[in-house]
Amino acid sequence: MRDFESTALRLNRGCLQILDQTQLPHREVWLDSPDVETMIRIIQNLSVRGAPLIGVAAALQLGLLAEQGGLQFEKALMDLRAARPTAVNLMNALDRLKRVYIEQGLSMVAREAEAICFEDVQLCDRIAENGSSLLRDGDRILTHCNTGGLATAGLGTALGVILKASHTGLKLHVFVDETRPLLQGGRLTSWELQRNKIPFTLICDSMAGFLMQQRKIDRVLVGADRIARNGDFANKVGTYSLAVLCKHHQIPFYVVAPQTTVDPECKDGSQIPIEERHAEEVRGSWSLQTASVWNPAFDITPAELVTGWILDRGIFNINDVRNGALAGGL
Amino acid sequence: MRDFESTALRLNRGCLQILDQTQLPHREVWLDSPDVETMIRIIQNLSVRGAPLIGVAAALQLGLLAEQGGLQFEKALMDLRAARPTAVNLMNALDRLKRVYIEQGLSMVAREAEAICFEDVQLCDRIAENGSSLLRDGDRILTHCNTGGLATAGLGTALGVILKASHTGLKLHVFVDETRPLLQGGRLTSWELQRNKIPFTLICDSMAGFLMQQRKIDRVLVGADRIARNGDFANKVGTYSLAVLCKHHQIPFYVVAPQTTVDPECKDGSQIPIEERHAEEVRGSWSLQTASVWNPAFDITPAELVTGWILDRGIFNINDVRNGALAGGL
Repeated sequence: MRDFESTALRLNRGCLQILDQTQLPHREVWLDSPDVETMIRIIQNLSVRGAPLIGVAAALQLGLLAEQGGLQFEKALMDLRAARPTAVNLMNALDRLKRVYIEQGLSMVAREAEAICFEDVQLCDRIAENGSSLLRDGDRILTHCNTGGLATAGLGTALGVILKASHTGLKLHVFVDETRPLLQGGRLTSWELQRNKIPFTLICDSMAGFLMQQRKIDRVLVGADRIARNGDFANKVGTYSLAVLCKHHQIPFYVVAPQTTVDPECKDGSQIPIEERHAEEVRGSWSLQTASVWNPAFDITPAELVTGWILDRGIFNINDVRNGALAGGL
Repeated sequence: MRDFESTALRLNRGCLQILDQTQLPHREVWLDSPDVETMIRIIQNLSVRGAPLIGVAAALQLGLLAEQGGLQFEKALMDLRAARPTAVNLMNALDRLKRVYIEQGLSMVAREAEAICFEDVQLCDRIAENGSSLLRDGDRILTHCNTGGLATAGLGTALGVILKASHTGLKLHVFVDETRPLLQGGRLTSWELQRNKIPFTLICDSMAGFLMQQRKIDRVLVGADRIARNGDFANKVGTYSLAVLCKHHQIPFYVVAPQTTVDPECKDGSQIPIEERHAEEVRGSWSLQTASVWNPAFDITPAELVTGWILDRGIFNINDVRNGALAGGL
């Protein structure tokens, strides 16, 4: 496969390296991922994260495996599929590689993996092009979790829109919520915004409502881990609360994702499996170690709370979605 | 003054001791507070916190000062008043002591301080009696921050209602949100619930909406730091978001406080000063040390989002409040 380098992924002469996101923002440590077992582990421990990026990383790993002879290729497909349940980009990427493997043979897998990676970059560019047309000079934007170059192979989804608009000269201010328990907003989005010299303010997740009440937020942009056919979507836990707060304050609320995040098999949000993660992610040295914890990694936002779905294929509203836009009907 | 002991306060032969809440839940360290300067410091660093408890602690400190001769008593009144701006119980307590000092002299101050403390215990009992009548066996209750024996001289306000109902035999399950940035829910409310053997589940602040969407919350009870005449109130930041989420999900939302938390001078929430605290409270070893931060300690919840005001004098609804109930009109 051709060499490739993005914010969080490197493919160099057949060696795949992943930026360890658990160590950001303080340390930039690149992990070697020589095999599928390693990739599964670093997906599960969140060294690599972000729905599109997980799909690309898994695809490149399988491309390498195919180039190396494809030992136990079908088992690798199955094991990777089980690594994390909610984001559908992983499943979409694996389905594509499986189809090529069955229909065209092992020798064509690496090229398909490469295509998945380069397409993700292009999808991000198109999303950013579409989304940035909605932003206005002076906008104060709240975003959640991380949806930038650390979540995709390209510019990003929700954060990609912000980066693109800023690069084209709009003055924006971004409010970054911490995104407990794993602080992807506070650790990762802050890091990306600082690198891109975009001014931002860090807040606790619980402060978003008060910020909106004070009319300090013009719009909210979030990513998605899986979008159902009816427009309901799963995203990092806390997204749903933001959507409800936006509705109450009449603030536009956009979900931003590539077509690879849409699951046409999923009729609505109730069919999206929600990963529950370890209690230790919530508990800390500050808490009772015996405290019982509920730790869903994602939540479901119903379509009726969404102002627009910003996809690579365009921006859709609730009427478009009802007419089948997400399944490719428009 | 007579000896007194509560969950977080001890007065023993004229020595005032404060349980250092910054070290809970792991270490129970009692701090000596021999003078007003010490009390101001431990109020500001949150070793003692909770609107009613701050008022009581300040009053007892002034009672001791009066017993010791009252050197610079008026300066002590002024300095304590400036310690924290939002909670009105502190101002109410200081106003009472000042009035006694002016009208009856220094020798009567200690008795008044004692009265403020014992009244707080009684107010908590009456609040708990009123509020527990609203709870039902099997209720799943979400609460925010800490409003128990660590926030008052007695049983507590919102948490006091829960403790009382549990003591009388109701089976309850409490969802405790962390309450970032200082984790009073995760550290303090968890600690009190465990001591009282009430089952609870710890969640991140951002998970409350998803929990409500899944119909797992029957009611939300919160405390207050200041209640305006029209029923708007200030409480720990994040309260307002919970109130909006409750409205969206049609979940009863109660604010629980003693009459000493009502500020009849305050027409509405816009007149309540909101303390903004250090960026370091939000930033951690995990974040960029240069990140700009917004850290309001409280937010304002408008009266129209409140199902009921549970006070020592009774439970009031929005119509009662419009008819002047909070100012003592009912």
